[in-house]
Amino acid sequence: MNDMLDVVLTSRVRLARNLQDLPFPGNMAQAEIAELVQRVNKAINTNNSFLLLCMQELPEAERHLLVERHLVSPDLAGCAKGAALINKDESISILIGEEDHLRIQCLLPGLQLEQADSLCASIDDMLCKKMQFAFESELGYLTACPTNLGTGMRASVMLHLPALSLAGQTEGLLAAISKLGYAVRGLYGEGSGTHGHIFQVSNQMTLGVLEEDIISNLNTIALRIIERERSIRSSLYKTNKLEIEDIVYRSKGVLQYARKLNAKEAMQHISNLKLGAGLGLTSGLDTQKLLNRLLTDVQCASIRKRSGLELSEAQCDEARANIVREALKGTI
Amino acid sequence: MNDMLDVVLTSRVRLARNLQDLPFPGNMAQAEIAELVQRVNKAINTNNSFLLLCMQELPEAERHLLVERHLVSPDLAGCAKGAALINKDESISILIGEEDHLRIQCLLPGLQLEQADSLCASIDDMLCKKMQFAFESELGYLTACPTNLGTGMRASVMLHLPALSLAGQTEGLLAAISKLGYAVRGLYGEGSGTHGHIFQVSNQMTLGVLEEDIISNLNTIALRIIERERSIRSSLYKTNKLEIEDIVYRSKGVLQYARKLNAKEAMQHISNLKLGAGLGLTSGLDTQKLLNRLLTDVQCASIRKRSGLELSEAQCDEARANIVREALKGTI
Repeated sequence: MNDMLDVVLTSRVRLARNLQDLPFPGNMAQAEIAELVQRVNKAINTNNSFLLLCMQELPEAERHLLVERHLVSPDLAGCAKGAALINKDESISILIGEEDHLRIQCLLPGLQLEQADSLCASIDDMLCKKMQFAFESELGYLTACPTNLGTGMRASVMLHLPALSLAGQTEGLLAAISKLGYAVRGLYGEGSGTHGHIFQVSNQMTLGVLEEDIISNLNTIALRIIERERSIRSSLYKTNKLEIEDIVYRSKGVLQYARKLNAKEAMQHISNLKLGAGLGLTSGLDTQKLLNRLLTDVQCASIRKRSGLELSEAQCDEARANIVREALKGTI
Repeated sequence: MNDMLDVVLTSRVRLARNLQDLPFPGNMAQAEIAELVQRVNKAINTNNSFLLLCMQELPEAERHLLVERHLVSPDLAGCAKGAALINKDESISILIGEEDHLRIQCLLPGLQLEQADSLCASIDDMLCKKMQFAFESELGYLTACPTNLGTGMRASVMLHLPALSLAGQTEGLLAAISKLGYAVRGLYGEGSGTHGHIFQVSNQMTLGVLEEDIISNLNTIALRIIERERSIRSSLYKTNKLEIEDIVYRSKGVLQYARKLNAKEAMQHISNLKLGAGLGLTSGLDTQKLLNRLLTDVQCASIRKRSGLELSEAQCDEARANIVREALKGTI
């Protein structure tokens, strides 16, 4: 399976849903939300295929980890009232009691928007057999914030665009995308900076559009960006072979040898190595898959979780370098 | 043979000599200097063990190379009037027609001041059998510049002091050395900056001291600096193990992988690797010897000479990276 892993890190679809018989979570008491959590859990988790995680019962480190892995939103992790239902392979997470009663989310590696959409739809179908969602024929699904009204759908792709960045073409491209009604953000959503040339593109409009059009339009846009990124990669490599090889191989050297690495630096070098892998400069069958996973594994909460210890920042930097060296051993 | 190669790059001794029957070179015509060159060549080069290089016949690149390898002074290479006699292993060079009629110079790897002194003395002995040097019993050897009067001897050691530098202790130490009448300079003599933590220490006084005292005092000073540098290296490593290993291994990564390297950067990384080799962090039998040679091989003129081409600066950076990668292949 190769779903454009050289350019697309992940595809994500989420649906906002609210129950007809309850006020929005902002107006619900803690006990009411706890009741909602149980209701949803009972509806969907009949054969224990989901893990129920109540935010207030989780240590801060665990909540950070869920945010880092894009399994829950910073808002849900921060408010401590809600909960999340997460399936075993972490492709599906259902956020309960965030801004809306439910956020059904599906996250898959590479460009798999349609598959993510289907997964979300199947959960949505299961749930709406057990509970009545707030829906009006004129507006569609009702949501706490009007920006989600209608389909309640937000679809996004996480793109790795080193060549467009190096060529100074991201700004122009991303401005054009904005005009088409798609938002561009950094790795961790709104307000987060871009590290390692990673950009998230998502739909803005939810009202007056069909779910399948949101998905297929974003898919088309993603394919065009992939094409452009790949084409600039190869032309950059043709015209600046030495420069590109120097960047890629130096990053390889640093990742293979550094004894401490901060998160930003690690991401930058992994990004460069991904560029190299895309250009065929590194061997190893599953390099892109490995590097994509590594981009998550080098985040702080993942490192702390893996170590099982309360690590200081300096200790985290050391552990990060060890994780990277271990992961790359013999593979590139 | 290990002559403190971890700290001492080279030992050098040079003797300034002038012939009694000639004015100093500053007052000599080109033809007179040419005559002097032939006279010296005839005296010392009976069995063709020396290569005679007349500066005005050498392309600029060749003259640069000689300066880079410390075989001739920038002054001799620049004025184009004089010549140099250089033996096969490049341990001895006799500069003719620089500031003084003769500069007998011996350059050896590691701490070998006494051996360098003996070599110089043997050349001096051979020459003074064939020609009369300007000498006064009160003053000793007469020289063009009074700073060389007396013994005409300048002895120096090139020291690699990364730990003293990292610990911020070079300034204090070098100020103390100055008080003892020894000068401290960068890699290429007066006015040259220090790159890669390399410092040259040489005697200032030539008058009213014995040759053997100049040598043995400098040797004592060098031994004390070596002891101090080594002790700080191991204590630095004990207290900052991760920091030091990170510096050393990152440099290893850069040197093994970079596709272009400027001279300053190359020297810095080689310097770090030398520190690592001194701490036992790299394997390979002759690492220090190899790295010391590499410090010379990465200089511009050496690279151009090796390529046999007129390289631009960018091409030089590429060639330098290739040379370094090749040299380090399988050895560290």
